[in-house]
Amino acid sequence: MSSQIGRNIRVQVFGESHGPSIGVVIDGLPAGLAIDDKAIADQMARRAPGQSAQVTQRREADSPQFLSGLYRGHTTGSPLCAVIANTDTRSKDYAALTDLPRPSHADYNAAVKYGGYADMRGGGHFSGRLTAPLVLAGAICAGALRQRGIDVGAHLIQVGEVMAPALDPVAVTREDLDRLRQAPLGMADEAARQRVEDLLDDLRRQGDSVGGLVECAAIGLPQGLGEPMAAGVENRLSAALFTIPGLRGLAFGAGFAACAMRGSAHNDPYTLVDGRVQPASNHAGGVLGGITTGLPLISHTAFKPTPSIARPQASVRLSSLSPESLTISGRHDPCIAIRAVPVVEAVTAIVCLDLLFDKGGTYAT
Amino acid sequence: MSSQIGRNIRVQVFGESHGPSIGVVIDGLPAGLAIDDKAIADQMARRAPGQSAQVTQRREADSPQFLSGLYRGHTTGSPLCAVIANTDTRSKDYAALTDLPRPSHADYNAAVKYGGYADMRGGGHFSGRLTAPLVLAGAICAGALRQRGIDVGAHLIQVGEVMAPALDPVAVTREDLDRLRQAPLGMADEAARQRVEDLLDDLRRQGDSVGGLVECAAIGLPQGLGEPMAAGVENRLSAALFTIPGLRGLAFGAGFAACAMRGSAHNDPYTLVDGRVQPASNHAGGVLGGITTGLPLISHTAFKPTPSIARPQASVRLSSLSPESLTISGRHDPCIAIRAVPVVEAVTAIVCLDLLFDKGGTYAT
Amino acid sequence: MSSQIGRNIRVQVFGESHGPSIGVVIDGLPAGLAIDDKAIADQMARRAPGQSAQVTQRREADSPQFLSGLYRGHTTGSPLCAVIANTDTRSKDYAALTDLPRPSHADYNAAVKYGGYADMRGGGHFSGRLTAPLVLAGAICAGALRQRGIDVGAHLIQVGEVMAPALDPVAVTREDLDRLRQAPLGMADEAARQRVEDLLDDLRRQGDSVGGLVECAAIGLPQGLGEPMAAGVENRLSAALFTIPGLRGLAFGAGFAACAMRGSAHNDPYTLVDGRVQPASNHAGGVLGGITTGLPLISHTAFKPTPSIARPQASVRLSSLSPESLTISGRHDPCIAIRAVPVVEAVTAIVCLDLLFDKGGTYAT
Amino acid sequence: MSSQIGRNIRVQVFGESHGPSIGVVIDGLPAGLAIDDKAIADQMARRAPGQSAQVTQRREADSPQFLSGLYRGHTTGSPLCAVIANTDTRSKDYAALTDLPRPSHADYNAAVKYGGYADMRGGGHFSGRLTAPLVLAGAICAGALRQRGIDVGAHLIQVGEVMAPALDPVAVTREDLDRLRQAPLGMADEAARQRVEDLLDDLRRQGDSVGGLVECAAIGLPQGLGEPMAAGVENRLSAALFTIPGLRGLAFGAGFAACAMRGSAHNDPYTLVDGRVQPASNHAGGVLGGITTGLPLISHTAFKPTPSIARPQASVRLSSLSPESLTISGRHDPCIAIRAVPVVEAVTAIVCLDLLFDKGGTYAT
Repeated sequence: MSSQIGRNIRVQVFGESHGPSIGVVIDGLPAGLAIDDKAIADQMARRAPGQSAQVTQRREADSPQFLSGLYRGHTTGSPLCAVIANTDTRSKDYAALTDLPRPSHADYNAAVKYGGYADMRGGGHFSGRLTAPLVLAGAICAGALRQRGIDVGAHLIQVGEVMAPALDPVAVTREDLDRLRQAPLGMADEAARQRVEDLLDDLRRQGDSVGGLVECAAIGLPQGLGEPMAAGVENRLSAALFTIPGLRGLAFGAGFAACAMRGSAHNDPYTLVDGRVQPASNHAGGVLGGITTGLPLISHTAFKPTPSIARPQASVRLSSLSPESLTISGRHDPCIAIRAVPVVEAVTAIVCLDLLFDKGGTYAT
Repeated sequence: MSSQIGRNIRVQVFGESHGPSIGVVIDGLPAGLAIDDKAIADQMARRAPGQSAQVTQRREADSPQFLSGLYRGHTTGSPLCAVIANTDTRSKDYAALTDLPRPSHADYNAAVKYGGYADMRGGGHFSGRLTAPLVLAGAICAGALRQRGIDVGAHLIQVGEVMAPALDPVAVTREDLDRLRQAPLGMADEAARQRVEDLLDDLRRQGDSVGGLVECAAIGLPQGLGEPMAAGVENRLSAALFTIPGLRGLAFGAGFAACAMRGSAHNDPYTLVDGRVQPASNHAGGVLGGITTGLPLISHTAFKPTPSIARPQASVRLSSLSPESLTISGRHDPCIAIRAVPVVEAVTAIVCLDLLFDKGGTYAT
Repeated sequence: MSSQIGRNIRVQVFGESHGPSIGVVIDGLPAGLAIDDKAIADQMARRAPGQSAQVTQRREADSPQFLSGLYRGHTTGSPLCAVIANTDTRSKDYAALTDLPRPSHADYNAAVKYGGYADMRGGGHFSGRLTAPLVLAGAICAGALRQRGIDVGAHLIQVGEVMAPALDPVAVTREDLDRLRQAPLGMADEAARQRVEDLLDDLRRQGDSVGGLVECAAIGLPQGLGEPMAAGVENRLSAALFTIPGLRGLAFGAGFAACAMRGSAHNDPYTLVDGRVQPASNHAGGVLGGITTGLPLISHTAFKPTPSIARPQASVRLSSLSPESLTISGRHDPCIAIRAVPVVEAVTAIVCLDLLFDKGGTYAT
Repeated sequence: MSSQIGRNIRVQVFGESHGPSIGVVIDGLPAGLAIDDKAIADQMARRAPGQSAQVTQRREADSPQFLSGLYRGHTTGSPLCAVIANTDTRSKDYAALTDLPRPSHADYNAAVKYGGYADMRGGGHFSGRLTAPLVLAGAICAGALRQRGIDVGAHLIQVGEVMAPALDPVAVTREDLDRLRQAPLGMADEAARQRVEDLLDDLRRQGDSVGGLVECAAIGLPQGLGEPMAAGVENRLSAALFTIPGLRGLAFGAGFAACAMRGSAHNDPYTLVDGRVQPASNHAGGVLGGITTGLPLISHTAFKPTPSIARPQASVRLSSLSPESLTISGRHDPCIAIRAVPVVEAVTAIVCLDLLFDKGGTYAT
């Protein structure tokens, strides 16, 4: 029905992994927003493959071409379209797979749903490559947020058994977020990162993969964004985040840990800070009743292991309906969560800007 | 902006806890759908307070009055409106609280956002009472699903430290779901339920509360529902589920456990069952690439502890901006997750019917 | 799919002519808006039947009951629901008609579309009665507009061959609009009104009906509302206005007359008025490129003759598929355009408030 | 807010007249739809400038490049993006105009709304050039309609004082529509066309322009499409049609003429045709109560004169706030209605396909 996120800012992604181009149309951006090419390129680079030994070796410049909505370095107020060419597509890697669906990929679902017409080379519209336009859109929205004193940053806090320290959910600063954005593999903690690199080396040798957990914080959001019930911060953020391939769960604040907590421990008492009322702790993750509290908005997003592994797997040949072993070759990240970090950040930025542009339901001055 | 869920079936909830009535408008229901009053009443009763010692003692008949969209026992195809009167509202319990916001409630957020104009008696539009119309809408949608061989059921699998067995994600049957629906406290396992009852007795004595985890399964869904990226099953289900107050996280299939898994363990290999291709395991939770696989759709939803506890808590008196201790009296469930069980089921039913009514993006026959 | 209008302010109408109640849910209203019962009642009275010999004799108090979203006389920011009971329903008048569809009514369409399940008594959800909740919603929105210096008014400028003078599209004042709102039959010009009354008397004797043309003006709208292409003022206003039964055409500014005009006559040159740039004429009807110019927003809406006439008409008995003559009895306005006047005004007010609440696409300050 | 039309099929147009490219994203198309390059090129050619002496001399190939959603000649089910390069842009013609707004253009509105950031060269996003992607999208949708036996065609029935015969609203055939599509200037009647050519020659000499009226018919639509009230055929078609620049009014069936008609003349009696119940006449224009009747869907759309005329016009220099005469040079159609003909046809095709893909609100089989 729709590959679109947002209500006021509407982000429509298009493209297939091995088609001519992928891209995005962003409708509803304010006019006069300066586009920072460097900031966009930095974010694109964080998501791009080939940063290290640990990630996919496919190399693409991924520099966007702006077709509309941009004039003399500023947004025009009209829909902005940017496209990214698909230049490094090795379709032969995938050609044999259409009749032998890869486990835990969308191949077979797409074959049934689209009657064989989907362009599934490289995963088609289901490919992680489609997150590149999301990162581009997020970088533009992040620029608008920074003008308003809002900053969004994400990092990895778990890869397999390796854990990295979480952010302080009350005291996280812009400097913390800057530091995360520059951390290799999305992990600021060096010891943890070293363990992850070792783990990824092992996995590569074993032809296996692993899942990971991303933490994201948005700071500087004013109190009062979002609406009760179906237009709350969580509703809109979760609907947008599940656009990211491989996401299997998400949580706000204490999240699933809240199931085992007592109310007396989970509740965030109110206190006075510099004469302002605010929660003393942030188990709520910055949102109560669907509405921002003014404390950092904290989410956790859980990514499954890369489904493309180099080991033999059971599948079924569709044309003959016979069981057959499948071994996937080609380039694959052993942990998709690593490259998901800037995508989570981008999607969160889009939704935060969207929330800022709500109008209904507020106090009539 | 909107207290509405669904795209094809659109469910608009309205009402405040202590206003004249709460209710729901359902737009997009097919005409000719038989309304089963008994099935609706049964679901409403599961959510209603006063079922046992463990839940709120407020007693309300909660029998819906249908204002439109229903004629001679069947839907007419026009918007269906049903209202539920608020008959047992003890506003005095809440009157004192407007100037002293309750921790981890929406009181203070609402005060700021709505400039003091929100009707926050009993939690107002943020109250768990607003889930009654959702259950009503869900019961109607569940009837339409059953006609199509689809069944949805939910149960509690964790309350504090107490765990109950999860469903078999591949083999769950309609009989399993029936059994869950009749289980007291939403827990079919008797030993676990006894431990939960003991825990709740303790909490009541201590004036405390606890969180809980709900598991929900939808069986019989055809393969191919949902769309890639932003209109996927998870996007739409998560956006709808976060309508339920107190929800802090949700996951599909292996969920957060996937972060620590290897791809070789998490992947669901394809196999042949009665000549049909299907995944042999269901770590995906019945959805790949946003599209149903035909296996059961499995979600887990994490609820925070009831924020209303009988212990003194720190707050701030807004009129004087001075710290003040707050003790909440009145009736409160020690574990909101218990009554959330039929609500999760209801919202899942609404979204499943909505998915079935998609049209675009499918194979053009 | 949806009986809903607006994007930021969303108005969902429900009900059937002879069901228990009709009503409206308005989601997205700002909190703190004072509800003026007198202003609402005045508008409801303009639409109500029984005002004179010329309109339907059905009498209903039509006083709305507010179920939610209203507290101490002000909106709360949560969805506002108001219902109007159907107290004067003479279903026997309609019972015989279900098998013999009335020409130019929706009876037969509804029979086919809804498989016989629609409640078509009195026209069901298709009835002009469903405009009562629209008028209610419009009166609430008009209150919010007046706070912002915006006023909307409509009147009849044609009934059959009788024409009344149009408003001055540049110089129309609030006083002009007040005068229109108090005019009997929605016609301020006494001579024209007398001719209409004579015409209606004739029609009543002849068992016939007639069409009519409504002109509506919104004044005080700031320049810059609306978006180019699909979210323009005309797109949104036309989508909303066609909610009114019997509307067959609508136009802005010069409208259909523009087809015969030269550009040199139709163009509105810019001039300076009190140091401000504004068009010297208003053939545009206050909107250029989908965006308000700051001059009055002028629409013309054409209504067909009342389809219920007292003369024999050709129809087909559905059960036997045999031609049969039909004579409609019961109460019917000879000219539905008369009662459409306050409805056009109401829908225009809803859309104007909706436009004011846009956020995206504007200059980023 | 949105430059998008449709609900199930969503068409997002982007681009500015003198930017790098214009284009369209179509989301929700069924997979497996064959794309007929010839049919698309034919429609694009009808809208393109330079067909005759009477239309703009700007020449562009306007051959679309498909970036996504198309594979081996068929739609994939994923969003289809097509772009059209802007190759013939003479920006110098427009450079001087930004400070001296053209009467009855969006220049001044855009200047205020977008704070000077809009790219208004050639009219920017407001340009008639943006209708090229609409025609492209319409040609694709028309292909899907033809598979289902539905055909859409439009023609000019008025230019200034010159009238051409209207279609027979009951008996219009596919052959009639084919004939219209091949008629020069969109006028099948040769005598009328000759008079229009003479008129246009005169206008060109006089530096003036003229309005025009387009009639459009969709045949083969099944009975029962559309919903009552806000999701009716008229609501959705009008919202989409007002996307076309210069449209000032639209009507269905008898339209504005209905204001002067008696019900006894306007009503469409039911009759039996080959054993099927259908209206004997079609004053309704194929839609009653928002729902198709099965007879041809007939609309009339009124276009204003081209606002760019070669005569001196009064304007105001914005920088100095002083009155100044403006004379527009450059290439301009004397009658934009001529090139609007295939655009009306295209938008109607998009909406008809969108209506066909509704699901809610129908009889539950």
